[in-house]
Amino acid sequence: MKNRNVLYAQSGGVTSVINATAAGVLEAGRKSKRIGKIFAAKNGILGALNEEIIDTSFESDKEISRLKHTPGGVFGSCRYKLQDPSSNQREYKRLLDVFVAHNIGYFFYNGGGDSQDTVNKIANFTKDMGFPIQCIGIPKTVDNDIPFTDNCPGFGSVAKYIAISTKEAGLDVASMAETSTKVFILEVMGRHAGWIAAAAGLAQEKEGDPPHLILFPEIAFNKKKMISKVRATVKKHGYCVLVVSEGARDSKGKFLADTGTKDAFGHKQLGGVAPQIALIINSSLGYKYHWAVSDYLQRSARHIASQTDLEQAYSVGKSAIDFVLKGENAVMPIIKRKKTKKYSWEIDKVALSKVANKEKKMPRSYITKDGFGITESCKKYLRPLIQGEAYPPYRNGMPVTANLKNKLLKKKLKGFKLPKK
Amino acid sequence: MKNRNVLYAQSGGVTSVINATAAGVLEAGRKSKRIGKIFAAKNGILGALNEEIIDTSFESDKEISRLKHTPGGVFGSCRYKLQDPSSNQREYKRLLDVFVAHNIGYFFYNGGGDSQDTVNKIANFTKDMGFPIQCIGIPKTVDNDIPFTDNCPGFGSVAKYIAISTKEAGLDVASMAETSTKVFILEVMGRHAGWIAAAAGLAQEKEGDPPHLILFPEIAFNKKKMISKVRATVKKHGYCVLVVSEGARDSKGKFLADTGTKDAFGHKQLGGVAPQIALIINSSLGYKYHWAVSDYLQRSARHIASQTDLEQAYSVGKSAIDFVLKGENAVMPIIKRKKTKKYSWEIDKVALSKVANKEKKMPRSYITKDGFGITESCKKYLRPLIQGEAYPPYRNGMPVTANLKNKLLKKKLKGFKLPKK
Repeated sequence: MKNRNVLYAQSGGVTSVINATAAGVLEAGRKSKRIGKIFAAKNGILGALNEEIIDTSFESDKEISRLKHTPGGVFGSCRYKLQDPSSNQREYKRLLDVFVAHNIGYFFYNGGGDSQDTVNKIANFTKDMGFPIQCIGIPKTVDNDIPFTDNCPGFGSVAKYIAISTKEAGLDVASMAETSTKVFILEVMGRHAGWIAAAAGLAQEKEGDPPHLILFPEIAFNKKKMISKVRATVKKHGYCVLVVSEGARDSKGKFLADTGTKDAFGHKQLGGVAPQIALIINSSLGYKYHWAVSDYLQRSARHIASQTDLEQAYSVGKSAIDFVLKGENAVMPIIKRKKTKKYSWEIDKVALSKVANKEKKMPRSYITKDGFGITESCKKYLRPLIQGEAYPPYRNGMPVTANLKNKLLKKKLKGFKLPKK
Repeated sequence: MKNRNVLYAQSGGVTSVINATAAGVLEAGRKSKRIGKIFAAKNGILGALNEEIIDTSFESDKEISRLKHTPGGVFGSCRYKLQDPSSNQREYKRLLDVFVAHNIGYFFYNGGGDSQDTVNKIANFTKDMGFPIQCIGIPKTVDNDIPFTDNCPGFGSVAKYIAISTKEAGLDVASMAETSTKVFILEVMGRHAGWIAAAAGLAQEKEGDPPHLILFPEIAFNKKKMISKVRATVKKHGYCVLVVSEGARDSKGKFLADTGTKDAFGHKQLGGVAPQIALIINSSLGYKYHWAVSDYLQRSARHIASQTDLEQAYSVGKSAIDFVLKGENAVMPIIKRKKTKKYSWEIDKVALSKVANKEKKMPRSYITKDGFGITESCKKYLRPLIQGEAYPPYRNGMPVTANLKNKLLKKKLKGFKLPKK
């Protein structure tokens, strides 16, 4: 039998190091004599369904290497959930046709918890159909919410960016507070889990340093307590820095960003929890404020990626190749923290059936008693993940990124109509 | 006569390299045998009025050197405008008392256009009073809006940060556009001049690269034209990145951020021009969008400062010392671009009377005909300013910053009551 090919797909929100994972897959795959070509689905699973498949063998080793310092998802990603195979197998049958048509023996799906569920379903379906394929889920998410893995590739870099930005903006606010802004609010990602918000706590190198308050999705918002702490902080330090998770919510689970108010055009007011918090503080205490919403900047800030994160992102990609060469199927590589004094880690694995569709939130023991900060044990967990500065090369003052050809394979199948959703 | 002392003060919004200017003053001043002590006013001119004066001789050379990689204003800054001396001289007389009490022979004021006006008035007043003092204005502003100087220290670093962030976020959006966000809007600083917004244009390394639209304060907002260009861009490239100056305004000069709408609490809706633009695009075209407001993050992002900017910021500080040693008074050091093929610069000077209270906006020739981009001549002007990556040292994954004692001098005068404003 001819060497079978890999199909690699990126899924969901991208990160500043997901392309490093792609580089891990591609570089390890190119070295193996038992692996055929490495294909990448254009725009994630959509490309697999539409038979839009990139043949990466046209890319030079040099450009592949540049993926290690290119943010975003270089083959395109998507937010697309397959139907449940227990009710409708049409999409799974299509994937099978595509796998057969292009001699796919290895399917790698690089995404978060939802994606691990998808790849698990594909593994089960192809097994039931008797089609020999090895399916590997590869973890990726800035939210750090995948269980079993000690941490998730993509998170360490956003954590580093947010910790640094909090420290830097904190120094700015501190120097202006006497006559100007007294309260600064930084909104960060994390709709369900507060890991990114928690990472801002690493900016606090000594007592009194920002951030003075962190608002987690895991802790119900308490306006009175927040106001009281902001007032006390401004009294003591002259200013106050808050870091707010986009997922901050009240005791009934309602997002603070969802105000229900309408603008002049009658449209629902746009999200942004930072301006809401600013408003609450200003109307209660009258302090002058500024707010920032870093949005995509945080998850694409490859210019200050964590070296640890980069290495782990690369490793989970490389491991997917290692795993299939060892005959593994329906597993996901995980980062395992070793029990050494100095931080060290190794790659382990978990069955996809275990990891699918589960979310890892912040444990209560990582949040201080008052609900506004992180504990020493949380810092101990987080700190190793932001170690090292993985600077990209620069040309003309700007970071150099990969420039792929992304040449598509010739289609062999008829077109596929995506189900209406 | 005993060697006379320097009083250095930081004014207005801080930058990621204003402390490098302070380092330039301090390191050059320490080397001179003709300069006494170097004092710094706490919180800018307020500290001078309140006789809250920091004696920097308690700081080690090592900590002073660390100022080169510490964002914010390490002695504190303020937004405070002195009264007009033609109507009320009380504050000027107070400053004179403080200068006399602490043997100040050199006054350095590090700020933007307003501050150059202030130091000019102080120079005139002390001259009229016959008090021998040399007053030097030192340029600083992220907005790049001071005339006579080719560019302004502080700007190159925010320009670099915005150009990089635009490129990075652009790669993120491009990879998700098929099923998710199609329009991304980044709001940047610059209330009156569009220099920072223009710098985003450096991300455009080849045809079709983001940013696809820039909204400048200098060009009246035209909704119809914007919508039409956004639609065409999404059609052609699948996504669209806009960079919007906070000062974007309509043909009547009304800021777009000033919507006049009220929220559920009856408060005026908070600014943020990015969400306004998002709303306009979404209601006209229905595209899914994301927006970011980088706010203080952009002007404190010392982690990716421009090496050129850092060197220039240091130089204008050092030049203040050089100037007074040469007997100069009522001048400001400027950056002069040399007529060399490869970019090079030198320090020159301009009279404060010329520079005070003037604003340098983007020339029309730097903006493309359609009003949404920058021209080649603009890129040629901007590009040298973002060259080089001036990385700070890191410890434990976080940038190292200076930790000054900021020890205050013993007061010699009675208290001063600030005028009510």
